[in-house]
Amino acid sequence: MTPKNSLNFSGGPGALPESVLRLAQESIIEVPEIGLSVLGISHRSDWFSAVITELETNIRTLLGLPENYHVLLLQGGATQQFSMVPMTLLHRKTSPAEYIHSGYWSGKVLPEARREGPIRVIWSGEANGFRRLPEDDELLFSPDAPYIHYISNETVEGVQFDRVLGRDDVPRVCDMSSDFLSKPCEAERFSLIYAHAQKNIGPAGVTVVLIRDELLNDVPADLPGFLDYRSHSHAHSNFNTPPVFAIYVVLLVTRWLINEIGGVEKMAQINRNKAELLYRLLDSSNGFYRGRAESQDRSMMNVAFNLATPELENKFLTRAADAGFSGLSGHRAIGGIRASIYNAVTLSAVEELAGFMDNFQRLHTK
Amino acid sequence: MTPKNSLNFSGGPGALPESVLRLAQESIIEVPEIGLSVLGISHRSDWFSAVITELETNIRTLLGLPENYHVLLLQGGATQQFSMVPMTLLHRKTSPAEYIHSGYWSGKVLPEARREGPIRVIWSGEANGFRRLPEDDELLFSPDAPYIHYISNETVEGVQFDRVLGRDDVPRVCDMSSDFLSKPCEAERFSLIYAHAQKNIGPAGVTVVLIRDELLNDVPADLPGFLDYRSHSHAHSNFNTPPVFAIYVVLLVTRWLINEIGGVEKMAQINRNKAELLYRLLDSSNGFYRGRAESQDRSMMNVAFNLATPELENKFLTRAADAGFSGLSGHRAIGGIRASIYNAVTLSAVEELAGFMDNFQRLHTK
Repeated sequence: MTPKNSLNFSGGPGALPESVLRLAQESIIEVPEIGLSVLGISHRSDWFSAVITELETNIRTLLGLPENYHVLLLQGGATQQFSMVPMTLLHRKTSPAEYIHSGYWSGKVLPEARREGPIRVIWSGEANGFRRLPEDDELLFSPDAPYIHYISNETVEGVQFDRVLGRDDVPRVCDMSSDFLSKPCEAERFSLIYAHAQKNIGPAGVTVVLIRDELLNDVPADLPGFLDYRSHSHAHSNFNTPPVFAIYVVLLVTRWLINEIGGVEKMAQINRNKAELLYRLLDSSNGFYRGRAESQDRSMMNVAFNLATPELENKFLTRAADAGFSGLSGHRAIGGIRASIYNAVTLSAVEELAGFMDNFQRLHTK
Repeated sequence: MTPKNSLNFSGGPGALPESVLRLAQESIIEVPEIGLSVLGISHRSDWFSAVITELETNIRTLLGLPENYHVLLLQGGATQQFSMVPMTLLHRKTSPAEYIHSGYWSGKVLPEARREGPIRVIWSGEANGFRRLPEDDELLFSPDAPYIHYISNETVEGVQFDRVLGRDDVPRVCDMSSDFLSKPCEAERFSLIYAHAQKNIGPAGVTVVLIRDELLNDVPADLPGFLDYRSHSHAHSNFNTPPVFAIYVVLLVTRWLINEIGGVEKMAQINRNKAELLYRLLDSSNGFYRGRAESQDRSMMNVAFNLATPELENKFLTRAADAGFSGLSGHRAIGGIRASIYNAVTLSAVEELAGFMDNFQRLHTK
């Protein structure tokens, strides 16, 4: 029987690669080069400094990130970034920052941003149930905005931008929590990228921030140290005790991406193959499986769909659980089914799921 | 040879009990009751809700915590609490909150607190190198202070309060990061207690906050959600994705405290025995080992001492490392030697260290 971890289609915290889990497991008792549990090694040790340095280098390598970016590892999840971004960039601004409301998560960002300064929602998909994303001609970006903010992939509704939005003369800020390192992202076109780890790159508890040098000049003088990107940058992500284990696992994932997968281009190809397999299945199911997102905006990370009735969906989830699949319930906000196929979910796991879905359809079609 | 983990005298992140490490290790591949890696289980799962509930119950049981306290599990370490406390309790206040400056860490608190409102340092040990703590007659608490704040144990200098400070008509706030659950703490006499996990109760990445009900009424309306104790309380510490693994390990530690140790009274007796063994050795070394703190204020958690010269201290650290001991360097702020003997360091590990110290002294005394 296929191990349960490899059939984990959870929306997040998500699956991690088997080889990463093995090394993470070993480190709980003994980090080989140190002989101590990773949970008891000082964050001020040479070993941990080397972990931070290598992780930063790996992220730079994977994304081709220029030298004028800082790579920071913070706590507080994307939620903390919902506030830190406007605290930093909206300070004393009168023109509004521009936000795109493309789904459940970008809706969560808005009240946190509004608390810190003026913002303007320049497009919302709420009226259409977030089934599609804006076309270019629906987006009018102002040259006066302090920045533009959007979320590259919405995990709940399963829609994903396949291009970079905004204008080159306005700083772009992007929440890439759910597709970071799943594909190339043209990082150098953004002023600030943030991504919590628990989808594609590690366990819950650590958030990667890539921030362009000149943005640090804008940080207001009176922010608490832990909300000030400068403190974290000056301290090389060791301003206060960082989540050592979570960061170590993210390092292991970047090593896996580089050495076992061969980079983000290769990762993207694998992710495309996985997504296409499932979307082809939805499209050829004669309406048995009903994809949520419009085809052109479909996410390569979260395949959200419905069956004809809630009863049939429940039966699907029960049978899937019996067959060893987990994490397939849709987000509590909208229900339905969702197969999250982050980096660590293998093509063969997706093939197994497709096989199950084919079979379930056959059994439930007259 | 004794396993290296059991000879880890690090100031933090510190040692964890062997049995906890084994269970934590197992969970990286498979949480027995779920069959999935703990790193890939949803924070919205029934399993994780049960983890939070049991952990909260265990902390209540261990400390005899009354029902009118909330138990919260937050990110951001004690550092985030340095700001959250005054953000919450100093809002629109004109009388200063009263802070005690008893060492390196309570010095770090002051600028973060001052940023948020009026504070007054009512005692500082800086002039005497933080070798002693205030006596009762040196402390004049005002009945008008919004709260009093102090740190129960200073890890760098190795001084620890053995009593509760302040007045019953002014809220007491205490940073117990380095002695939480190492002994009974009369929790019901405090309005707010906070403790990051990485000394006595778990890995870096999670912070326990115990907050009395009525303090939630004082939270200003305009705080970001993640800095608002109410959001975390309403969401049962699941406001945004919590650090699932770190919280699970804290649960394992509380189970160990209850089932293997037998509670915090028993833990305190073990900790006293460990500390007394080392302090007796310092006191009977004829000045070869020189305890940093004055005897009446010595910490049961961090035994800080010096040898005659920095050269001899370096030799001590080298020989100790050769013998399998780790984490004995003093904090970078003051140097010297420090044996941190948190809950998970066993009496037999301390006996081994004492044996090594005796022997080192014999070899280096003419």
